[in-house]
Parts: sequence; C-alpha cells; structure tokens
Amino acid sequence: MAVKARIFVTYKESVFDPQGQTITDAVQSLGHPEVKKVNVGKFFDVLLDSTTTDVAETINEISEQLLVNFNLETYRYELLEEG
Amino acid sequence: MAVKARIFVTYKESVFDPQGQTITDAVQSLGHPEVKKVNVGKFFDVLLDSTTTDVAETINEISEQLLVNFNLETYRYELLEEG
Repeated sequence: MAVKARIFVTYKESVFDPQGQTITDAVQSLGHPEVKKVNVGKFFDVLLDSTTTDVAETINEISEQLLVNFNLETYRYELLEEG
Repeated sequence: MAVKARIFVTYKESVFDPQGQTITDAVQSLGHPEVKKVNVGKFFDVLLDSTTTDVAETINEISEQLLVNFNLETYRYELLEEG
C-alpha cells in the first residue's frame, strides 16, 4: 500500500526568518498594508510503501537524517492519502 | 479580524524537480528503499487583516505579483485559522 506524507519544515519560533521579513516588506510596498506578516517554510511530499515499513518511523528517520536542521528548524508531518 | 492563510507553491507536474530527485536518491541510499518519491515545495504563512480587504483577492494578488513563478510553478492556498 502506498502512503503519501507531507513533512512541513519551518524555522523555530526563536529563529529570525529573513526571507519572510523581506517578503512581508515587499508585499506591503506593493500596496497590501493588510498583510501583517509572512513566514516561509518548505514541505516535502513523500510517497512511500507502507507494507514493509512503519510510516511514522521512516518519516522521523529521514527528517532527522536529511531534511531538517535541528539547530534552526522544526518539523511536523501529516498523512495526505493512502491507496 | 486576523486570518492566517497558507499558500503552497509547487512545481507544475510537467516540470522536473531536481531537488526532489536528489533527495529521493539520498533517502534511498540512506537505507529507505520503501521511499518511492520525494517532491519539494515551499509554503508561505500569511497573516492578514480581513476587516478591510477581501482575503481571496489579496492572496491571489500577492501570489501573482510576488510569490509564484507561473512559468514553472503553480499554487493553491488554504485558510488555517481566523480569530
């Protein structure tokens, strides 16, 4: 069975998000003062075979080994679909 | 009233995602053959004041003006919370 999981990676609350701040400024300059704040993040859509493996374990392992910089970032994931 | 919207930006289906391919290869090399495919995307969390503006219009405008490269990318958004 195939499962699709989406891993969201964001800066920790305590870490400054320079790209988000730049985009906030740009959006306001473009005539949208109603936009108060923009934060930027990445996501990874992972398609995996759940018959031979534990999905949560795989997601956590690849996040920790490869996808997330724990000095600056944090992550969460959700399952999108199974089939 | 403040509304938080999350705008998801991904490559179009027809566009090759080199970062996703590289990550797929790396994850498989790290001992996860159960991972079949990884795709990468960005998201923007936008906090905006909905009392003076139409939320959908603002989201579409800033996506088109700034956040999305329509040659390569496509976007969708969802409202996360209101309060």
